[in-house]
Amino acid sequence: MRISTLSIGDELICGQLTDTNAGTIASLLLDGGLRIQRHLAVGDNEADIITALNDLGRISDAVIVTGGLGPTADDMTSRAAARATGRRLVINEEARNHVRFMSGKLENLIFCPLSDKQTMIPTKSALISNPCGTACGFHLMHNGCFMFFMPGVPTEMIVMLRTTVIPFLQERVVHKRVIRTTSLNLFGPCEAEVDELLAGIARPEQGLTLGICVTFPWMKVTLRAEADSDTAVADLLEPAVSTVRERLKDYCFSTGETSMDAAVAELFRDCCLTLSLAESCSGGLIAKRITDIPGSSAYFSEGVVTYSNDAKVRLLGVPTELLNSCGAVSSECAAAMSKGVRLVSGSDLGLAVTGIAGPDGGSAEKPVGTVFISLAAPDGCWTKRFHFSGNRDEVRVMTAWTALDWLRRYLLRRE
Amino acid sequence: MRISTLSIGDELICGQLTDTNAGTIASLLLDGGLRIQRHLAVGDNEADIITALNDLGRISDAVIVTGGLGPTADDMTSRAAARATGRRLVINEEARNHVRFMSGKLENLIFCPLSDKQTMIPTKSALISNPCGTACGFHLMHNGCFMFFMPGVPTEMIVMLRTTVIPFLQERVVHKRVIRTTSLNLFGPCEAEVDELLAGIARPEQGLTLGICVTFPWMKVTLRAEADSDTAVADLLEPAVSTVRERLKDYCFSTGETSMDAAVAELFRDCCLTLSLAESCSGGLIAKRITDIPGSSAYFSEGVVTYSNDAKVRLLGVPTELLNSCGAVSSECAAAMSKGVRLVSGSDLGLAVTGIAGPDGGSAEKPVGTVFISLAAPDGCWTKRFHFSGNRDEVRVMTAWTALDWLRRYLLRRE
Repeated sequence: MRISTLSIGDELICGQLTDTNAGTIASLLLDGGLRIQRHLAVGDNEADIITALNDLGRISDAVIVTGGLGPTADDMTSRAAARATGRRLVINEEARNHVRFMSGKLENLIFCPLSDKQTMIPTKSALISNPCGTACGFHLMHNGCFMFFMPGVPTEMIVMLRTTVIPFLQERVVHKRVIRTTSLNLFGPCEAEVDELLAGIARPEQGLTLGICVTFPWMKVTLRAEADSDTAVADLLEPAVSTVRERLKDYCFSTGETSMDAAVAELFRDCCLTLSLAESCSGGLIAKRITDIPGSSAYFSEGVVTYSNDAKVRLLGVPTELLNSCGAVSSECAAAMSKGVRLVSGSDLGLAVTGIAGPDGGSAEKPVGTVFISLAAPDGCWTKRFHFSGNRDEVRVMTAWTALDWLRRYLLRRE
Repeated sequence: MRISTLSIGDELICGQLTDTNAGTIASLLLDGGLRIQRHLAVGDNEADIITALNDLGRISDAVIVTGGLGPTADDMTSRAAARATGRRLVINEEARNHVRFMSGKLENLIFCPLSDKQTMIPTKSALISNPCGTACGFHLMHNGCFMFFMPGVPTEMIVMLRTTVIPFLQERVVHKRVIRTTSLNLFGPCEAEVDELLAGIARPEQGLTLGICVTFPWMKVTLRAEADSDTAVADLLEPAVSTVRERLKDYCFSTGETSMDAAVAELFRDCCLTLSLAESCSGGLIAKRITDIPGSSAYFSEGVVTYSNDAKVRLLGVPTELLNSCGAVSSECAAAMSKGVRLVSGSDLGLAVTGIAGPDGGSAEKPVGTVFISLAAPDGCWTKRFHFSGNRDEVRVMTAWTALDWLRRYLLRRE
């Protein structure tokens, strides 16, 4: 089945808003065994919408349209859909009842003449119900092509896609294909290394593909199997996933949508250890990421952002002499910070980072990007020097990722 | 001039990667007085690329293509371009020299047979030089349509667009139009309020448009003027910007790309006050945002993330009796925290937040989303209760934004 998507909105082709709907629809369809062939975006211009619907209709079995169903004047998808498919635009009683009902339900929304526009639907169309907003969607068949129209608001569109559009299309696919995807998330190796490690696993001619997607500073390896049946897909996918896992070893911190933060949180929940943090160059970023996870108060008691030397002395007990002799960005200071925060907080683990995030403050001996990470634990204290490249943001992000990965590896070793 | 963009790559239509090039190209062109009419994305499939080039070529004066110029087998844009335009694909000596030169310059890159592919360019094309990578771009004219081909890597594409594509197109525009955009960033009011405040300013029939873009939790108001000359554009735009500024008053925290964090940083640099932070529910997010800005060490000395009650007592001197009688999420505790952190750090300002970010921990009296913010300053201490809606992430983000906005308003009042 040849499927196209069409996004409508001036903000999308002016560069004001990044079109995320296209990607969302593509991956939700893929999970349902359906593949997008092309994606088009046009502005709020009736002639352009009509041309787009005609062009896509000619070369597709189904077109999924989002955007331009709102109540304001620049929303003109319904009218364009009617014109492109030779239909009239009429008041639809079902849509009218829906707009009335939702207007009552949603706060701050009054049923005003403007919303009347949302009750006008092309003739010979079926409504797509929208449990989250006023705009009804609709679908119709034109010259052998199914056309679906939905609002551009992601939360509304996703529900409508899941409950109506995908099941509708799946029922009509003649040669059903099963597609399943597994993804593994890695931190540490460079792309070339992963490429080499995973050589020979993909077998595209049999329907097994492997993709590596680099999203600074981590990577996602996606394995996708496509075949005629669930069993055939499982036979392709499962051994491949095992091989990938074996070869990647502990580079892999999670699967699917589980973030590094969530992976670390899960390990903390299992091990019953507590944590405190002393951050300098990362400025609270590690604490922020630890506390992003609900329930983190069970293992995280406190963090200090000791930006000034005075704070390092007062809050962590770092000796002034040490700061004078070795400097705040040093292995010695990092170790004193991790031990200090562990001691004053009474936590099991103390994690500390100190470094030079830039753009200023670097020297020949300690250039921008020099970072020391230290972990103080009941069974020892480890400190290491790193040199991260990139701008201030990138150095800070790499610092936080590496520190979290250290925690993850420490907790894994203890298991 | 009718201009289209075409993005090529399986990862774009599988939903693995969000296509940001489309938006980047659109806004860079708009700054240069050029407007995109439609954007298309297709996968790494030769037939689909050829159809796309033919379709877009038919209805556009120029097509800007990105992606599929890499060295691997799934990069097939050059071949498809040659086929679609009836050209041969031949080794281009200039491209060959470029690939050789860049391979020597870029680390970890060896001139291997694979890269030979990048030296094959359709006949009757001109190269677009790429100072940042191995892949040359090229452009050609087919049936009256200019077609530009560039790599998909954003940093490479942007330079090539700026130095070659935009000047080339600008020279060929017959009816030159000047387009200028000014944007103002707001925090605080709801969309309906802004809509009402800014009513009557836009005059689309004269070429002055106004757009409101909501990006949780802030908003961008964009004024765009289009006319025949710089003077005409200035005459349209400047009075409108003044009116918008007047009506929005101190809701507006910055213009253009300046973030709230940078706006606050600028005020701190001017006023010579110092700041320390005591965070509970925001878990380090405010410290992270303050230290995102280079040079923040000049006014920010320290922050504490006092997640546990024990840490509030030990690090901030919050009385245990106060915690027992009022609770950690209370106006009294927030005030004690802000005064405490101001005192122990010796900073001019102490900012504290305590609240319930959820998803658990709420009660009838203090539901999830209840947050107290307190600012202790030389001239007083102010504390306020807020109720933010949304999930854990949204409550934390709103807490940090509101706290930063408090700082901004306090520093503005002092000026």
